[in-house]
Amino acid sequence: MLKLGTKLWGGRFVGNTDPVMESFNASIAYDQRMWDADIRGSKAYVKALEKAQLVSMEENQKILHGLDQIADEWAKGTFEIKPGDEDIHTANERRLKELIGAPGGKLHTGRSRNDQVVTDMRLWLRDAIATLTSDALQLISTMVERAAVEINVLFPGYTHLQRAQPIRWSHWILSGAIAGTYLAYDLLFFFKYEIGRIFSLCFFCVFFLAEFLFWASLCLTHLSKMAEDLMLYSTKEFSFVTLSDAYSTGSSLMPQKRNADSLELIRSKAGRLFGRCAGFMMTLKGLPSTYNKDLQEDKEAMFDCYDTVHAVLQVTTGVLSTLKINQSVMEAALSPDMLATDLAYYLVRKGVPFRDAHSLSGKAVFTAESKNVSLNQLTKEDLIAISPLFEDDVSSLWDYQSSVEQYSAPGGTAKSSVETQVEHLRKWTKILMQ
Amino acid sequence: MLKLGTKLWGGRFVGNTDPVMESFNASIAYDQRMWDADIRGSKAYVKALEKAQLVSMEENQKILHGLDQIADEWAKGTFEIKPGDEDIHTANERRLKELIGAPGGKLHTGRSRNDQVVTDMRLWLRDAIATLTSDALQLISTMVERAAVEINVLFPGYTHLQRAQPIRWSHWILSGAIAGTYLAYDLLFFFKYEIGRIFSLCFFCVFFLAEFLFWASLCLTHLSKMAEDLMLYSTKEFSFVTLSDAYSTGSSLMPQKRNADSLELIRSKAGRLFGRCAGFMMTLKGLPSTYNKDLQEDKEAMFDCYDTVHAVLQVTTGVLSTLKINQSVMEAALSPDMLATDLAYYLVRKGVPFRDAHSLSGKAVFTAESKNVSLNQLTKEDLIAISPLFEDDVSSLWDYQSSVEQYSAPGGTAKSSVETQVEHLRKWTKILMQ
Amino acid sequence: MLKLGTKLWGGRFVGNTDPVMESFNASIAYDQRMWDADIRGSKAYVKALEKAQLVSMEENQKILHGLDQIADEWAKGTFEIKPGDEDIHTANERRLKELIGAPGGKLHTGRSRNDQVVTDMRLWLRDAIATLTSDALQLISTMVERAAVEINVLFPGYTHLQRAQPIRWSHWILSGAIAGTYLAYDLLFFFKYEIGRIFSLCFFCVFFLAEFLFWASLCLTHLSKMAEDLMLYSTKEFSFVTLSDAYSTGSSLMPQKRNADSLELIRSKAGRLFGRCAGFMMTLKGLPSTYNKDLQEDKEAMFDCYDTVHAVLQVTTGVLSTLKINQSVMEAALSPDMLATDLAYYLVRKGVPFRDAHSLSGKAVFTAESKNVSLNQLTKEDLIAISPLFEDDVSSLWDYQSSVEQYSAPGGTAKSSVETQVEHLRKWTKILMQ
Amino acid sequence: MLKLGTKLWGGRFVGNTDPVMESFNASIAYDQRMWDADIRGSKAYVKALEKAQLVSMEENQKILHGLDQIADEWAKGTFEIKPGDEDIHTANERRLKELIGAPGGKLHTGRSRNDQVVTDMRLWLRDAIATLTSDALQLISTMVERAAVEINVLFPGYTHLQRAQPIRWSHWILSGAIAGTYLAYDLLFFFKYEIGRIFSLCFFCVFFLAEFLFWASLCLTHLSKMAEDLMLYSTKEFSFVTLSDAYSTGSSLMPQKRNADSLELIRSKAGRLFGRCAGFMMTLKGLPSTYNKDLQEDKEAMFDCYDTVHAVLQVTTGVLSTLKINQSVMEAALSPDMLATDLAYYLVRKGVPFRDAHSLSGKAVFTAESKNVSLNQLTKEDLIAISPLFEDDVSSLWDYQSSVEQYSAPGGTAKSSVETQVEHLRKWTKILMQ
Repeated sequence: MLKLGTKLWGGRFVGNTDPVMESFNASIAYDQRMWDADIRGSKAYVKALEKAQLVSMEENQKILHGLDQIADEWAKGTFEIKPGDEDIHTANERRLKELIGAPGGKLHTGRSRNDQVVTDMRLWLRDAIATLTSDALQLISTMVERAAVEINVLFPGYTHLQRAQPIRWSHWILSGAIAGTYLAYDLLFFFKYEIGRIFSLCFFCVFFLAEFLFWASLCLTHLSKMAEDLMLYSTKEFSFVTLSDAYSTGSSLMPQKRNADSLELIRSKAGRLFGRCAGFMMTLKGLPSTYNKDLQEDKEAMFDCYDTVHAVLQVTTGVLSTLKINQSVMEAALSPDMLATDLAYYLVRKGVPFRDAHSLSGKAVFTAESKNVSLNQLTKEDLIAISPLFEDDVSSLWDYQSSVEQYSAPGGTAKSSVETQVEHLRKWTKILMQ
Repeated sequence: MLKLGTKLWGGRFVGNTDPVMESFNASIAYDQRMWDADIRGSKAYVKALEKAQLVSMEENQKILHGLDQIADEWAKGTFEIKPGDEDIHTANERRLKELIGAPGGKLHTGRSRNDQVVTDMRLWLRDAIATLTSDALQLISTMVERAAVEINVLFPGYTHLQRAQPIRWSHWILSGAIAGTYLAYDLLFFFKYEIGRIFSLCFFCVFFLAEFLFWASLCLTHLSKMAEDLMLYSTKEFSFVTLSDAYSTGSSLMPQKRNADSLELIRSKAGRLFGRCAGFMMTLKGLPSTYNKDLQEDKEAMFDCYDTVHAVLQVTTGVLSTLKINQSVMEAALSPDMLATDLAYYLVRKGVPFRDAHSLSGKAVFTAESKNVSLNQLTKEDLIAISPLFEDDVSSLWDYQSSVEQYSAPGGTAKSSVETQVEHLRKWTKILMQ
Repeated sequence: MLKLGTKLWGGRFVGNTDPVMESFNASIAYDQRMWDADIRGSKAYVKALEKAQLVSMEENQKILHGLDQIADEWAKGTFEIKPGDEDIHTANERRLKELIGAPGGKLHTGRSRNDQVVTDMRLWLRDAIATLTSDALQLISTMVERAAVEINVLFPGYTHLQRAQPIRWSHWILSGAIAGTYLAYDLLFFFKYEIGRIFSLCFFCVFFLAEFLFWASLCLTHLSKMAEDLMLYSTKEFSFVTLSDAYSTGSSLMPQKRNADSLELIRSKAGRLFGRCAGFMMTLKGLPSTYNKDLQEDKEAMFDCYDTVHAVLQVTTGVLSTLKINQSVMEAALSPDMLATDLAYYLVRKGVPFRDAHSLSGKAVFTAESKNVSLNQLTKEDLIAISPLFEDDVSSLWDYQSSVEQYSAPGGTAKSSVETQVEHLRKWTKILMQ
Repeated sequence: MLKLGTKLWGGRFVGNTDPVMESFNASIAYDQRMWDADIRGSKAYVKALEKAQLVSMEENQKILHGLDQIADEWAKGTFEIKPGDEDIHTANERRLKELIGAPGGKLHTGRSRNDQVVTDMRLWLRDAIATLTSDALQLISTMVERAAVEINVLFPGYTHLQRAQPIRWSHWILSGAIAGTYLAYDLLFFFKYEIGRIFSLCFFCVFFLAEFLFWASLCLTHLSKMAEDLMLYSTKEFSFVTLSDAYSTGSSLMPQKRNADSLELIRSKAGRLFGRCAGFMMTLKGLPSTYNKDLQEDKEAMFDCYDTVHAVLQVTTGVLSTLKINQSVMEAALSPDMLATDLAYYLVRKGVPFRDAHSLSGKAVFTAESKNVSLNQLTKEDLIAISPLFEDDVSSLWDYQSSVEQYSAPGGTAKSSVETQVEHLRKWTKILMQ
């Protein structure tokens, strides 16, 4: 006996589906969050059908009205998912037929499921990207305004985790804000460019999504680095910053602990999202062209990516707007050996080639270490033994404020330079917000 | 004013938590599936506390009874998650205190949350691995028994997707079964070895989970290759196999389509799981030792990994037990040029060095192509022009059944060799099942 | 006794370096290929030093002349790398001092090694990207011109590897060309945008390189898909295309084999490059800000990425310009069931809602299969039993040329539509070439 | 005119190969390092051929002698690679024929190139794994012996990078040694188990290599974590350890810098190797079964993996055997609040449920912070206000040595427990070395 299935592909199948296969195949559990995009897409499509005279004006009205009703059910939480609704598209179409009967069967005339899915994803992603851009800009603004306020605070700049040279705290913050701007700009560009593409064949959506996943990974990798810095700065040993209670947690075992959990969560998500990107790229590799069911992996990756970046950006904004800096500790961490480069430049100004000056300054550092004094405590004799070019005016070097003021080139740590960056970023953020 | 928090770490926190941070931090949404493992772990722990005289016999009884009640609530679906239950451990402990009061506060004496989590994960994973092993063995059994039944079917063996030499269909199946056994053995070993480790410090759980994720990736990568073969074999062009309706789907646009969606889903999951593995490894990289909140990523990865492998193994078993082979098409795909290696061996048996024989056989193939005849249709003159060593007995080569019977070494495609493998695998599967 | 080292950081170190550590630390083995970029960067830098009066005009002349001599040595292959030359920068500076003495020590006044490396990488990468863009455009041109010539060839379009609908062979080619254009556009944009960035702080180079690695992965992932299609098409079973000998290899064992090795190599490289991207992202994750030696991984990744994409693009161009299509086989692969969608549209035109028409067409396919005839061989009675709306004019459907002409929307497979795409791509390629 | 190629697959090819394709296809540049394995494998194979009477005793002698000559040439560096030697196997066979003529053509009778490659890789990898195991055991020994010597040094144990409880420095070292043992055990097992596999079909080599790449990634991920800890401990702020000069480098710009480059390089390699693993897994995904040229990616991955792990293990051993600990700084970093857990246990011993005791101890920490005194400076009144159960004997808690002695369970930080671990590891290392 012929058993006609009830699935969309209708009149052909004779067997039954394995229930494990059924649930393996179904995506309604996660793709229902695109209900609004699906309805918007269908409304646009049916209007095009009417224009092409494939549905009548009356059918068009019925369909539009039915779709509005469905949207209403979703919004109110009364939409009922039934067995057989394998994805949001099937569910909405099934409901439409229940509500308006025959004309519902005309809605997807000449439209493959794949076209419909891709349209829905694009619509959904457009909104998602708008939200993420706004999240990113809020974070950048927070950073820029904090940098503007705390511009006078100096602390050690590190390379290789070793104290290098004195820099402004605002300089550290702005590095992050600039990177953020770079990424927000990427995102915005990526999106504006995408929607304007001349060849909008549906299979490019796959590239589009891959780029989105990578963008998200890169963005969170950047934040993982910023979180790492702040984690160090909030150790007892550094004690440069204190996270607000809202972004710390205690220990179930040790009553005195105060953990920077928020920063650890931020750091961890870079791995999570890059895993999504890696998984999707591996799924894509070597697939025959056009649609293959493998691509069903795209939606969970997209949703998780959005949710994760959305949460991370908000939490980072929260952390950065509420942390307290310990200015005196930061400044106490500056030490004269961090001015050894200035000592070398002193000799350069007296005509010593840079490499030789660097080597002589290194000897000064070594001498100070050997004598167990700090670099500015070397006697005139000590210095002259290293180079006869050292004179009394060398004492003017031992001033952190003057030291940072030397770096007034664009991107430098001099006050004017940092102020210029603040202004630049304020302007950019404003432009990107539009 | 001092606001005492209600979280586990109790009396210290003064601020409030950002709601986004709160949900970022919470894991109850997914870790509640370890409720049973959590209760079993706690029951074992409280017994140890009684032994160490840290709880009285009476308290022990109360706690055990309370835990049983909670287990009962979970099993019946009546357990109510409350705000503040950030994970399954907090939830169960909160409920215990509601049920039995003060003694509930003694349950986790001297136990860090991290120890508790790791114990729960190990218990959960032990059950999960037992299930996956059983899934794998069922798949292997299906393959072995199918191979035993269809042992007489020949079809082309491919390398580089080009027809190479005739092989038994069972030989193809068994390659998969052997790989499956390899992987099931890995899994079992991995687990037995793990639970017997002498140094069971909790942080090794991280390695353990990473190995599990990689095992799963490798297993599904293997299945992605098998699925790829079957997908090719089920194209119209190959037509070697037909999937049952239960594992195929149609097209919403094209009524005649019959897609091997099950195979595409199997293939896609290798990427998904390797993404999980990649994400977790990236999260681990460069973390300071001991516990960091970054490790919270472990649980979603573990659950997804289990669910995915569990479904894939079942669907693969379903596909392989229901697909139909088209023996006549398979055999019609054999062609005399696939015996060119036999032609070379014919010359080797007459004393020609293998490389020369290979070259001469290549010339025969070229001659046949040039004359547009098949290799076995070359005339005696054609062959003698290539090598005078060709004699009339060359005609005995053009027999696929004899050709495959030459490969009777272990792992070969001769009937006896395939039968030996079937016996071997039956025995191994039985051993592994114990 | 104080042992003064001979390394750049000069006068401070007292111990010796472990030889394994020395070679672990050294990059000269691979970064010497940036010799030209290093010299160009240094020439620009010394000019800036002269402007800033940090070197005299005479010193400037000496340095420039010395750098030219070094460039000459590299170009002629006479530059001698000496022990202690840990990277190309040290090697060139060491040689400069040998050639011109003291003024050589002034060359890098105030320039950190990191700034120098980043400048060199940018210069090198700018040339590399120009070459890759040109490679990509050559590939696209080859595809577009081939599509223009073979526009009349029809063959099956596949989804899920199952024959779907008739399409033009040129339509398949252009999908690839469009994707290529998309990627070439990405590359060009990425580069033009990058060099115009207002905030050119050196640490962005890290993002820049990560984006380059990802672009390369995405590009090769796309090519892996195209290679997969061509591999299928070149199997005996499909026989749609034949690769030229120049891009095939034989088998050392089986004389009749002809393997599409070139396509397999193309396919494999997507994994290789994504591995580079994954490795670099994992290395970046959680690094403290500014420079850390971990970033030394960037150069090997960059070189391998360039070399691989450069080779793959050239080989793909070679494959696509020399493969032979087997038009008669392609056309023979079309079958009436691929017009089932047209059958459904026939009913839609008579007023049947699309979903019902799809179901009825499915019944027709099923009836044809049951009767073991092809779809166009169903009798009028057969069809009327399915729907009374079928009339004699249904016979006009069974024409592949008319079928493809229905899809004349942008991106469609109608001749006019494909021609439009050819024109579009010719124009774009020309624009991108500028 | 027929142009007979000179490649192995001999007499069939008519066209020429594209030079880019030629070099794309060739592997001699990197696989020549398997020359010794290739010759050993061939010697074993020719002996089997003689046994099977496929070569005569005399031919066997000639071939063996020729192979020895070739080995000699490689060892002396006089072997000359010629155009057309696309891989080490072709090169050796070509040379054999030059040296001994016709019998050379019999060497690979009935052996596919793929079988030969896999045998060579297994032989090569067996030696490689033996070397890596020995490297790993040397590192573990270094750690264990250092732990034995410095067992009396206490310093802060950290979780979440926050000071948690006092632990022994040896306890930290041993965590690493235990993880190392775990990994060395994995490696040894993996190898012993592998060579004993009953089904040694060549395609399993692919899994084998994938497992090796993953093992390497896991091993280096572990070392990346250890390096991260040491990098923190060697910052100015922590100052717990000082790296020897042999494993530090200076800065080309800042004379006072002393960077822990060795640790940064160790940390970075985890990414590099996981990238190799990710790339190889992605290459494997979805490949048809048996041999495809894509698998050529295996060798570069294998060599790079070995070289990297070999270097990293040696450098890590060097770092750990030469670093200096700053005992007084480590001990000065202990503070009374790290004993807050002990304060809670004090109350537990007086009958307070653990959760309540934890909360009360938290209040004590809060009170001390509010009064700006350290926890052990709270007055009796302060404590009694928190809980009337506090008595004079609370003062006995403020002793770090007693505190650590409480943790005498296996894996604990008490002296006896650490000594047991040292003994255990000494024994294990000895066993693994055999």
